[in-house]
Amino acid sequence: MTIKLIGFPYSGHTMRVIITLRELGLPYEFETPANFEMFIYTAIRLLTCYNSGKIPVLFDGDFRIIESRSICRYLASKYQGKNNNTILIPNDVHKAGLVDQFVSYEIFYYEPPAFKIVSQEVFVEKFWNKKPDPEIIKQGREELIKVLDIYEKLLEGKEYLNGEFSLADIYHSPYTHYVYGVAKHSELWDSRPNVKNWRNRLRNREAVKKTLEEIPEEIP
Amino acid sequence: MTIKLIGFPYSGHTMRVIITLRELGLPYEFETPANFEMFIYTAIRLLTCYNSGKIPVLFDGDFRIIESRSICRYLASKYQGKNNNTILIPNDVHKAGLVDQFVSYEIFYYEPPAFKIVSQEVFVEKFWNKKPDPEIIKQGREELIKVLDIYEKLLEGKEYLNGEFSLADIYHSPYTHYVYGVAKHSELWDSRPNVKNWRNRLRNREAVKKTLEEIPEEIP
Repeated sequence: MTIKLIGFPYSGHTMRVIITLRELGLPYEFETPANFEMFIYTAIRLLTCYNSGKIPVLFDGDFRIIESRSICRYLASKYQGKNNNTILIPNDVHKAGLVDQFVSYEIFYYEPPAFKIVSQEVFVEKFWNKKPDPEIIKQGREELIKVLDIYEKLLEGKEYLNGEFSLADIYHSPYTHYVYGVAKHSELWDSRPNVKNWRNRLRNREAVKKTLEEIPEEIP
Repeated sequence: MTIKLIGFPYSGHTMRVIITLRELGLPYEFETPANFEMFIYTAIRLLTCYNSGKIPVLFDGDFRIIESRSICRYLASKYQGKNNNTILIPNDVHKAGLVDQFVSYEIFYYEPPAFKIVSQEVFVEKFWNKKPDPEIIKQGREELIKVLDIYEKLLEGKEYLNGEFSLADIYHSPYTHYVYGVAKHSELWDSRPNVKNWRNRLRNREAVKKTLEEIPEEIP
């Protein structure tokens, strides 16, 4: 069966899926739609998607699935261990539970402040033609600092969030990349040894490196 | 092994876990902490949790897990099919992928507008001693209307979100209950036949009914 992914190489959500495909050693076809519109992060996206095709979308033969995190979980559930030894969701139900706990951390604590920064510094000008709001950036930074202080403790003595590399680490990659990439924020990671080593380890994985290299210099 | 849940019976997050325990036919002990503080929905919660015990938390023997949705997924993965025939995560990987797609809808599209309404109309006065902001309620309603218009289409010809009852339906229950319970919002569900039937079906499940009956009249 052919796996086909439709998305934008610079979208954090698309990147999450590409990294998962690569980590699992899965060949796939990639397509970027000619016309697109950036959707503000609200319910509107669901509306749009239902009528016309939300991005990213993955086709696995005839099977179609949207929502980046759900796509990644589907791919891991179906294919992990088939083309290589990478396990993203542990077979042990307790370990899997704790990976999922980190998935919740990413969704509810890590991405929201990171998104505040990224939306203002990357998206607002490029896509919405507005001026960045320094108050939102400040809020995002303050919240992210609290979260990274906790992550520093959670990562003590561990290579990855749950010890072994997992789906949870992949979920964290794209927004980490975008916020870290803005020079003035990189110290948020680099000033915390465990968080710094985790970010580096993640950044140096082949699947992540390759995916980041493919982000076009110029986001259209 | 004894399952013990610590939480508040009126918390949507705790309700989600209790409904899951009941749907799976799992006996459990329940405890409400004597002292508590309501945490504003930000990264602060993670900080607090790490140091002192975020609510809800589930202990399954020695195993400890937080984050309501992760707790529910853990319970389903470990126990479904053991004490009764209820299956919350389908064994078929494609069906499971689509259930997870609805889990993403709940997290990213359904709960955020519902939370805007609930936070203002239920929490703001009771817990934070502030006046509700009509502008946030208005926004929440407008967004929820768009989401429910989509759900009306997605539920066409189906009893539950993914056809069969699943974890995704449980995730939607608590906030549906809280928003629907405020008289002026119930028409949002009742004016859409598929959404109305879905809500009724959900509301009438034994596990949901019992859990809702246990919400104290007076939230402290």
